[in-house]
Amino acid sequence: MIVVLAGGVGAARFLQGVTQVVPQEEIVVIANTGDDSQFYGLHVSPDIDIVMYTLAGLVDEKQGWGVRNDTYHTMQRLSALGHENWFQLGDQDLATHIHRTQLLHQGETLSAITEGLRQHMGIGPRILPMSDDSVETHIQTPAGLIHFEEYFVKHRFNVEVQGVEFVGSKTARPAPGVIDAIKQAEAILIAPSNPIVSIGTILAVPGIHDALHEASGMVVAVSPLVGGAPIKGPADRLMRALHMEATAVGVTRCYRDFLDVMVIDQQDAHLAEQVEDLGIPCVVTDTIMRDQQAKTALARTVLEAAGLRY
Amino acid sequence: MIVVLAGGVGAARFLQGVTQVVPQEEIVVIANTGDDSQFYGLHVSPDIDIVMYTLAGLVDEKQGWGVRNDTYHTMQRLSALGHENWFQLGDQDLATHIHRTQLLHQGETLSAITEGLRQHMGIGPRILPMSDDSVETHIQTPAGLIHFEEYFVKHRFNVEVQGVEFVGSKTARPAPGVIDAIKQAEAILIAPSNPIVSIGTILAVPGIHDALHEASGMVVAVSPLVGGAPIKGPADRLMRALHMEATAVGVTRCYRDFLDVMVIDQQDAHLAEQVEDLGIPCVVTDTIMRDQQAKTALARTVLEAAGLRY
Repeated sequence: MIVVLAGGVGAARFLQGVTQVVPQEEIVVIANTGDDSQFYGLHVSPDIDIVMYTLAGLVDEKQGWGVRNDTYHTMQRLSALGHENWFQLGDQDLATHIHRTQLLHQGETLSAITEGLRQHMGIGPRILPMSDDSVETHIQTPAGLIHFEEYFVKHRFNVEVQGVEFVGSKTARPAPGVIDAIKQAEAILIAPSNPIVSIGTILAVPGIHDALHEASGMVVAVSPLVGGAPIKGPADRLMRALHMEATAVGVTRCYRDFLDVMVIDQQDAHLAEQVEDLGIPCVVTDTIMRDQQAKTALARTVLEAAGLRY
Repeated sequence: MIVVLAGGVGAARFLQGVTQVVPQEEIVVIANTGDDSQFYGLHVSPDIDIVMYTLAGLVDEKQGWGVRNDTYHTMQRLSALGHENWFQLGDQDLATHIHRTQLLHQGETLSAITEGLRQHMGIGPRILPMSDDSVETHIQTPAGLIHFEEYFVKHRFNVEVQGVEFVGSKTARPAPGVIDAIKQAEAILIAPSNPIVSIGTILAVPGIHDALHEASGMVVAVSPLVGGAPIKGPADRLMRALHMEATAVGVTRCYRDFLDVMVIDQQDAHLAEQVEDLGIPCVVTDTIMRDQQAKTALARTVLEAAGLRY
């Protein structure tokens, strides 16, 4: 069994490769839920949805999230009724949030709901939220603490970051199956996701960091930073704001406690030595997932780095 | 000020006439909320919405409810996720329910939410829910008690009716403004709505029946039954099930405690004498609201019957 720690778009694309190499039923995704938020009274789990829609073949590949060819009729009416509309939810996408919210109100856990959605969508890999408890990533800005999605989507990360807080993380428990999956995995792959607000959030759930440290399977991470910048999103800005080096070396430092191999892009080949100086073996490859072939090749390289061959 | 007691489609069409005759700001609609229900965890107020969409010019005139040219993308996905789909909610329509549900969860009252929706939709007449408390119309069937919408929409009223219950009505209070509006009205018009499950539900809210009885304005009702059958819906079936005569005479009996004038259709002219035998003056006219002209003419006749001239 292979565990993949996952954020949003980068992770979903990486999983499109992994699912071509590893039998689907042997894959367990542990997904960040720190971006979860209420919009219009509905519980939205952005990273879980990106992963699900991608694995179900429903995703809007161009934007990386949402449902392909979705319409926005409900959103337009919500705007007409005076709602803010910076977080756009498509009509098909809304069904997921309405479904999830209804079941949460009925007392079901996010894990159970996610498992039900997975089955309805015919998705092979299991998808575990990192926690069934609320952990909300907030960004400290000069204007105060704001939810990550407000920073990310509303302000398009053009706001000075003074800190990051995972509200609720101290008392959150890993969702059922998370710790066992990490313990039993032949390999734990850390997707090329934001090390602060995607993977960092998962690591902030008490018990997960330690389980990775003690895991018998190899832990292999893919750097989301290539040439000092992420393919998408604010990873570099957040790292710099937190006085980290915004390179593959900085990402390695985030994971060094439990990391067995670091995979970096060929454009960053000159950083391999610095990664290895941290005591972490480094694999240099093409990490740009421009098409399915590239995704599959990356997955194969990462699995090989974990000592597995398919 | 003119008060209109309103159910769904028949009332909305009647209001399309009243609003052509009476200045909009002088109209207060008291709407049945006994059909309100949760669908997919969202609070739906069918009669309020029919009235609002109609007065806002958004309604699907052909079906009488919902938003014109609406799409059903969210519904299709909800079905794919395993939900029952006998209560179809369009994508634009959903915005109303999402908005209402969010504000109800935040502690706002149905009255306040309805007033906000009215303003956003640019609707002239005030619309008051009969109550901010939950009153749910249930139908007693051989298979047990079912919600009115299940009887009406899911079973298309092809179920034996043994009784009608207004669950919650005993402790419900009239919404703010309801009793005052009835007391202050120059006339109270009872729309051609179902006398059992639309108007009957309103009358079941403690205080409303007595306020009508004591009202200084004339109370004028329009029979929803023409030739012994309603234009739409199960009024005749419900009346027969409750051992009432399913004619304009039977409708008159429902309201005779407080009714000043009964308006019946010309097809039922032969019933006028029986209505008057109940002590209620009867006006015979064309009540079939086939077009705007007919709606306006009916409204004018009803207002004249109430002693008002515009």
